[in-house]
Amino acid sequence: MVDKKLSGAGLRGQSAGETALSTVGKSGSGLTYRGYDLKDLADNVSFEEVAYLILKGELPNQAQLDEYIAKIKANRGLPQALKEVLERIPASAHPMDVMRTGCSMLGNLEMENSFDEQGDVADRLLAAFPSIICYWYRYSHDGVRIETETDDEHIGAHFLHLLHGKKPSELHAKVMDSSLILYAEHEFNASTFTARVCASTLSDMHSCITGAIGSLRGPLHGGANEAAMELIEDMKDEQHARDTLMGMLERKEKIMGFGHAIYRESDPRNAIIKGWSAKLADDFGDDRLYKVSVECESVMWEQKKLFCNADFFHASAYHYMGIPTKLFTPIFVCSRLTGWAAHVMEQRSNNRIIRPSADYVGEEPRAVKPIAER
Amino acid sequence: MVDKKLSGAGLRGQSAGETALSTVGKSGSGLTYRGYDLKDLADNVSFEEVAYLILKGELPNQAQLDEYIAKIKANRGLPQALKEVLERIPASAHPMDVMRTGCSMLGNLEMENSFDEQGDVADRLLAAFPSIICYWYRYSHDGVRIETETDDEHIGAHFLHLLHGKKPSELHAKVMDSSLILYAEHEFNASTFTARVCASTLSDMHSCITGAIGSLRGPLHGGANEAAMELIEDMKDEQHARDTLMGMLERKEKIMGFGHAIYRESDPRNAIIKGWSAKLADDFGDDRLYKVSVECESVMWEQKKLFCNADFFHASAYHYMGIPTKLFTPIFVCSRLTGWAAHVMEQRSNNRIIRPSADYVGEEPRAVKPIAER
Repeated sequence: MVDKKLSGAGLRGQSAGETALSTVGKSGSGLTYRGYDLKDLADNVSFEEVAYLILKGELPNQAQLDEYIAKIKANRGLPQALKEVLERIPASAHPMDVMRTGCSMLGNLEMENSFDEQGDVADRLLAAFPSIICYWYRYSHDGVRIETETDDEHIGAHFLHLLHGKKPSELHAKVMDSSLILYAEHEFNASTFTARVCASTLSDMHSCITGAIGSLRGPLHGGANEAAMELIEDMKDEQHARDTLMGMLERKEKIMGFGHAIYRESDPRNAIIKGWSAKLADDFGDDRLYKVSVECESVMWEQKKLFCNADFFHASAYHYMGIPTKLFTPIFVCSRLTGWAAHVMEQRSNNRIIRPSADYVGEEPRAVKPIAER
Repeated sequence: MVDKKLSGAGLRGQSAGETALSTVGKSGSGLTYRGYDLKDLADNVSFEEVAYLILKGELPNQAQLDEYIAKIKANRGLPQALKEVLERIPASAHPMDVMRTGCSMLGNLEMENSFDEQGDVADRLLAAFPSIICYWYRYSHDGVRIETETDDEHIGAHFLHLLHGKKPSELHAKVMDSSLILYAEHEFNASTFTARVCASTLSDMHSCITGAIGSLRGPLHGGANEAAMELIEDMKDEQHARDTLMGMLERKEKIMGFGHAIYRESDPRNAIIKGWSAKLADDFGDDRLYKVSVECESVMWEQKKLFCNADFFHASAYHYMGIPTKLFTPIFVCSRLTGWAAHVMEQRSNNRIIRPSADYVGEEPRAVKPIAER
């Protein structure tokens, strides 16, 4: 067996399989889910329609959508044992560790017994994830055991309802819906690839998703919107924003929320969330965070020709909706679950175990010495 | 960016990075850990020495080994919250889901706050994993809350002690020690690669190991020793073994425990565990399982030129030591953790995020239709 040398590390530019789920940065279209342009979807459909599209292959008709929303609504409750586990996770825990543990625990209580159940398991996780993160958050931070079943039609509104203990405004519900669409699927990124490697051993859905959550947790992957928030939250005005960034650039500090591994010109998700951030600023009555964000965008383009990616304006948008920064990446999970689960199903449908080779760079053959001679 | 076509699926024969940890199937040596031949290690050192070698780079001297064993012994206790989580996992759960959840939960309680702590986290998991699986197993199956701290010097003996509630015989302790050495490390297999993909986002150690456990759970990866046990347990004698296998071969049924993705002639781990299985059969006073296993080996070689891999004689060996079949793969976890953690550290030391590309095989660009027209 001859090992082929990589042109670069990290399998960059190397095809690791086939997918029918999305295209990222293909010429002529920035991001498509099953052939539909992201903007077309964000302008015209709900997140539940996108989830249905990604998981089942086609956009639903009205009857299918009604049934799907009813199914999601019926699956928001958590088993008592899972609640008791979440109550044992301290407020100081990393919220992504909570998601990872919640998903893993659910796998003990509601095992995927055969691949025939994969669609139901994915839908169950889609319904349960907002409940898991909000149940833990409210219990550990506020000492409240919340009821996780609401009658909100949409997952985004349901999340905000659980978090704040009241139905969100129409604007907030709409923005969350749109945000979930933007994060739903993105080809062979590291967390999705983790799910596919796991799926390739024919492991169960909960294992694949648990692994993906662990990968998304990494600061090089899912944490960029939180880092963007930390960057902008103390910026007083546009001049302060400019000065801060110029200083960081001079000191060659890493600035999160800009540029992308695949996109070269712009991130098609940015214009959409930026538009929502502007509307939220208006609605909120204080546009400081929006204005400093716009100034950051200008500085990074002038100085570095770097554009905002999906994460940058998510920071101000989420903040305007009263979402604690530490929950930004768990929201990403609630959305990307759709892509992950669909990739697991796709990997299963045409599987070979993913088992690459490695270039050995270690010690030459050597003999064990008796311990007294070491 | 031009995507290179794969010669085969599953990244087979494709290099995905560098490692100094092991060689698998390189000419002249079947399996080496940091340059030492597996047999040399199995004949001359303990599993703790191998773990130290894999995790820290060199075999320990006596003072280092004494300190390491003392550290492992001091880390066998489980936090109360973790015990309470394990008590909420039913006896019907998949034991690998228990391991996955136990590791993930520990990450909430004892977070890796910086990569400076990676060695300590790995050692803690090495000490805690036998406690996690045995605490759950004994509580859910026997209703007993066991004390997970023992004064056994070695991890293998400690595991058997927790499982059976008494110190193991010298032979059993020695076989478990040897078995843990055989499973400790195996280059870029699917679970290890999962851990590296996760590590490449700079996620924490618990996420990487939790993901790897999920991948090892898959029947194409970690479950082969359990499948081998199911195959042989009802075989009455050698003739019955031969007839069973001939029938399965005729019906083209999959037979687990034979052949390997990388090894071509033999699996260097087989001779070692086969030798122990023979000694255990002798000691046990009933060699039926050993004899039918040997007969299976003959049939598979005669008929298919397939050799036993590491898993096949592990089935009879574990069974002779009174280990329930469902705990075979969790033992694999207790051992392979060393390789996984070392790969995580290696990935971190020279990292680029692992983000391959995909070949798109989906729908052409299309426009969203109003829901009434779908």
